[in-house]
Amino acid sequence: MTIAFQGTAGAFGEAALVQHFGEDAPRTALPSFGAVVAAVAAGDVEAGVVPIQNSLHGSVLETYDALLASDGVHVVGEVRLAVRHCLLAAPGTRLEEITHARSHPQALAQCAEFLAQHGILPVAATNTAVAARDVAALGAGSAHAAIASERAGALHGLEVLATDIQTRSDNTTRFFVLGGHPADGPANKASLVFTTRNEPGALLACLEAIAEAGFNLMKLESRPAGDAMWEYAFATDVEMADRSELSVVTLDALVASLGERATSVRLLGRYPAAA
Amino acid sequence: MTIAFQGTAGAFGEAALVQHFGEDAPRTALPSFGAVVAAVAAGDVEAGVVPIQNSLHGSVLETYDALLASDGVHVVGEVRLAVRHCLLAAPGTRLEEITHARSHPQALAQCAEFLAQHGILPVAATNTAVAARDVAALGAGSAHAAIASERAGALHGLEVLATDIQTRSDNTTRFFVLGGHPADGPANKASLVFTTRNEPGALLACLEAIAEAGFNLMKLESRPAGDAMWEYAFATDVEMADRSELSVVTLDALVASLGERATSVRLLGRYPAAA
Repeated sequence: MTIAFQGTAGAFGEAALVQHFGEDAPRTALPSFGAVVAAVAAGDVEAGVVPIQNSLHGSVLETYDALLASDGVHVVGEVRLAVRHCLLAAPGTRLEEITHARSHPQALAQCAEFLAQHGILPVAATNTAVAARDVAALGAGSAHAAIASERAGALHGLEVLATDIQTRSDNTTRFFVLGGHPADGPANKASLVFTTRNEPGALLACLEAIAEAGFNLMKLESRPAGDAMWEYAFATDVEMADRSELSVVTLDALVASLGERATSVRLLGRYPAAA
Repeated sequence: MTIAFQGTAGAFGEAALVQHFGEDAPRTALPSFGAVVAAVAAGDVEAGVVPIQNSLHGSVLETYDALLASDGVHVVGEVRLAVRHCLLAAPGTRLEEITHARSHPQALAQCAEFLAQHGILPVAATNTAVAARDVAALGAGSAHAAIASERAGALHGLEVLATDIQTRSDNTTRFFVLGGHPADGPANKASLVFTTRNEPGALLACLEAIAEAGFNLMKLESRPAGDAMWEYAFATDVEMADRSELSVVTLDALVASLGERATSVRLLGRYPAAA
């Protein structure tokens, strides 16, 4: 059993995978979210882990697009990962020696206050794991550090000079766990996408169907559906209003009811909510 | 009159500013979205331009956060900018000579197919405008190109080797125009944020208030509101269902009606919809 994630070894996607499947899970890195979805759909891997939402930067529309464009892929779980940035450098380096920090621009921005306080200049990298690899390659005495996860640092033999250097402590990323078949175990959460005509009351009718079926909305997000500017797609997560087990039968009834009011409905999957 | 944007000269924020205010508008670059919002609130600038939504990457939650954290800032307009990436190099360089392309990782990812076809390696930069500046500094014969807007290339004396090199042609970013006072001219669109308790029917009641007041939803997006995991914030854009003028009186009535059903309501502003 191999599980796919996007990025390179040490990426946050790998950390989410390990958090869900354990440290020893066999895994393979793929270059894009779409490649992970395609590998699951083709049966090349048993499962995949893709980011779907970040607390600071919002939904990963690219992942939704890849899921909607693919048949035969089901959301079977979710993972919530706290994004904790560390300053990493070659062993023996002291914080005072660091003049430059390499990372993805988003991570650099999230740690801008720490960098300014320490007079460290930001240097862009393709992603946080690549930054760690590059700093390891520069070796001792380079005065360059990386901003990445502790895991990425350990992987490349770097030492942690400072932890939790991001300005906001509430930075979490939510990942979908993907499989080639619907989950048949216990579940208390489901993700759906439905489309409506862009006219008054169209969405309201769909939300009434959701409420009447005894569901509570946990997320609702609109976006124009493809080229049709007069149709809207809504990505939504639901749970039972009483937080009870979400059965296949109840969910099928919801999809049928939504199908009468929406122009289309796609059930992405049902799964146990992350802690 | 000075208008603030985020980034450096040649950034997409500046292009949005120019599209709205004209090429000759006096402008100032600030380091973050929050700095633009703060400058407008303090009256240091007459207006500001901040990104709020991208068609591929979703809402810019950082901008919403900055707006909600600040009093005295109003949305007075919107701009829709088509994101068109160009490959830019020092004058006289031929496409065949390019081995590396510098840009923000997001832009590099958006142009990954073009780069692969031409055997060009991606190199991360802090943003697209900085990439153009760096390539100009390297000078002729460097074999490095930048991926940025045509405007950024012109600013740094670079030549366009290829245009529209992004894989998806539907990449647009929407910007808010901010002012220190509510717009008092004609308007047909408004943006609001309201919070509800996370319980069945809470959102439904708010959407009914919107429909009953004769409004059509153009955008609706949920996110957990701050630390309170049991309360949800919804960012929404509305227009009159008959697409008519949106008067201050009608909007005030909507805010009052929403106020009776939501736990809080904040009108970000009313403004003319972008073409």
